[in-house]
Amino acid sequence: MEELKAQLAQVIRAYHQKGWSPATSTNYSFRNPETPDVIFVSKSGIDKSVFSAADFMEVDMDGKALPAYEGIRPSAETLIHCKLYALFPETMCIVHSHSLYSVLQSMKNEISVSLSGYEVLKGFEGIKTHETTVQVPVFDNTQDMPAFSETLEQEKARLTVPAFIMRQHGTYAWGRNLFEAKRHLETAEYLFEVDWKFSN
Amino acid sequence: MEELKAQLAQVIRAYHQKGWSPATSTNYSFRNPETPDVIFVSKSGIDKSVFSAADFMEVDMDGKALPAYEGIRPSAETLIHCKLYALFPETMCIVHSHSLYSVLQSMKNEISVSLSGYEVLKGFEGIKTHETTVQVPVFDNTQDMPAFSETLEQEKARLTVPAFIMRQHGTYAWGRNLFEAKRHLETAEYLFEVDWKFSN
Amino acid sequence: MEELKAQLAQVIRAYHQKGWSPATSTNYSFRNPETPDVIFVSKSGIDKSVFSAADFMEVDMDGKALPAYEGIRPSAETLIHCKLYALFPETMCIVHSHSLYSVLQSMKNEISVSLSGYEVLKGFEGIKTHETTVQVPVFDNTQDMPAFSETLEQEKARLTVPAFIMRQHGTYAWGRNLFEAKRHLETAEYLFEVDWKFSN
Amino acid sequence: MEELKAQLAQVIRAYHQKGWSPATSTNYSFRNPETPDVIFVSKSGIDKSVFSAADFMEVDMDGKALPAYEGIRPSAETLIHCKLYALFPETMCIVHSHSLYSVLQSMKNEISVSLSGYEVLKGFEGIKTHETTVQVPVFDNTQDMPAFSETLEQEKARLTVPAFIMRQHGTYAWGRNLFEAKRHLETAEYLFEVDWKFSN
Repeated sequence: MEELKAQLAQVIRAYHQKGWSPATSTNYSFRNPETPDVIFVSKSGIDKSVFSAADFMEVDMDGKALPAYEGIRPSAETLIHCKLYALFPETMCIVHSHSLYSVLQSMKNEISVSLSGYEVLKGFEGIKTHETTVQVPVFDNTQDMPAFSETLEQEKARLTVPAFIMRQHGTYAWGRNLFEAKRHLETAEYLFEVDWKFSN
Repeated sequence: MEELKAQLAQVIRAYHQKGWSPATSTNYSFRNPETPDVIFVSKSGIDKSVFSAADFMEVDMDGKALPAYEGIRPSAETLIHCKLYALFPETMCIVHSHSLYSVLQSMKNEISVSLSGYEVLKGFEGIKTHETTVQVPVFDNTQDMPAFSETLEQEKARLTVPAFIMRQHGTYAWGRNLFEAKRHLETAEYLFEVDWKFSN
Repeated sequence: MEELKAQLAQVIRAYHQKGWSPATSTNYSFRNPETPDVIFVSKSGIDKSVFSAADFMEVDMDGKALPAYEGIRPSAETLIHCKLYALFPETMCIVHSHSLYSVLQSMKNEISVSLSGYEVLKGFEGIKTHETTVQVPVFDNTQDMPAFSETLEQEKARLTVPAFIMRQHGTYAWGRNLFEAKRHLETAEYLFEVDWKFSN
Repeated sequence: MEELKAQLAQVIRAYHQKGWSPATSTNYSFRNPETPDVIFVSKSGIDKSVFSAADFMEVDMDGKALPAYEGIRPSAETLIHCKLYALFPETMCIVHSHSLYSVLQSMKNEISVSLSGYEVLKGFEGIKTHETTVQVPVFDNTQDMPAFSETLEQEKARLTVPAFIMRQHGTYAWGRNLFEAKRHLETAEYLFEVDWKFSN
């Protein structure tokens, strides 16, 4: 468990270096296969340039802090994590970015970002050839997390790859472990950037 | 005190890596809650790639070097720091950047940079939702620091978030501690960049 | 041999930092002058941010894993490496990137990227002056590696510098040792970027 | 002397990280105040990502290797260094970059890059206010170093700041020590980039 925390904390600091999480923004979580009903989520308000293993706390599947963490605030977006674990039960890790190109794409595309013909599309699990088109959905941003959770549930059919964008906010991506979640986020961000630079 | 110096020095070197302080440019300061009338400000002419705790000196609230530092020049812009501490007494740390996007925004926007609907706006203290518009003021650059201090005083009402731009020069941001000042500067710079890339 | 593995692994991690190999993408190989019929190629599916000397495996000149590595999958593009070693027998190292500017150039240029008058063209072996024009060929991407190997053989005459682009995929470059392969890839990528930024 | 070599070598590796010297490109030199007729210049063909103090060699004021270095090739552009030391006798250090924005500016501006009103202009020695315009000359690139040295001599009056661009090649900058040369190069490159991004 401690090793998983340390590994994800290292990824978080590396993502901060890329500019994906200015100051205290963004949030991350993982589950342990042995206790899948416990979510380890980043605490609220931590500067991501110095995020460490100690900056995770434990919440239940409804986002409520476990007794050992009473009084400590989890990330404001914890409910998004809870809903994704519920909708996609195989998911064990969820990562997030506020990357510029995710935000830019969401300001240009009302419904989804369409990505066609790129080799790196194969970074999404299950995609075996570049000869395909992927639609990454864009959802409106909101501060109402219960409402957004409902949106995710209603729009589940549009989540054909494990990533979506919140408008003017950033990208969520997930996977069956940290390795896969990381691959999905880096795949999405690379594609958002190259596609933006080609079209603009 | 030594720890605060070391922490801010590390932030300064990291900002240099981002390209926010070419060569010897930019300046930084903080106050100690126990001696709020003493300002620890960066010395003039230090290369920011190697800035260290020893590169701070102490000045009084008028920007005059304390006796122990006689003969050493503080940053040429020390008076801006003095005025900000006077106008916003809770302020304990002031940071500065010469970022490209701050300069670019100031060449395009005569009066202020208007930022609307971004999630990262919540990085500014007191802002709780992305559904808002923030105006970051742009002031003309000058080498006349007493005159600029007066401008700040006259325009205080426009400083609705803790940041402003000097035209073709860069951003100042501040907060109640290093953590908050850093969050405000990174929030402003992120928004300047994404907004520039969307509009240009 | 171990030193060569460690050196190339370090280059791979540095290229990942540049954004040339999001997540597990891209592949690399080298040969040992003492056993030129053995190719040391990167294993499939390794995250390039943590690629190490242990992540190479040995295949023969047809891309078949040597007995010691049975059951381990080499990179899906191993046949491209095999073909390049066969076509250019002096080649001892092959490197690859998924850089944004390589992909962008390939989306704009149907046949080749034309590069004229740049000093850095001299980074390509045999070019002694900037007063020249180089055509870097662009080939269509495919998942059919035997077919692509055949394309390389047929188009060999167009490979006047040791680099080509696969469309919406990335750059391959090679040399008589790691030092030269690295120089060729960095030369190509620099030129793709500056040329893109000038024209777009 | 060894300390100066180590300091400049560290700067060279940092500049490589910025993308200013792909692979083996660019060259650097300094003089020792005690033996001003000896130039310590980078050897030809060294990969700048691993440049070390041992990669300098000594040449005389005509660019001829000192006896201890016979048979080792100095950088092909050593004559440019010799001429700058002759034209500006106070100069003790010369640095060079192949930055993208230097090349881009030189492709757009036939005679010089005009820079107006930027605070960072004060990074050039002798400039005390942003209310000024600086012309950084652009000279045509050539492989004929004696001819280029002559150009520098003829055009000396246009070198009003310690920097110039060779077209589609890069920037040279110099100063009375490494600290100042570094400040001049970083000042020039920052201004080339911000000015390019504003105009394009």
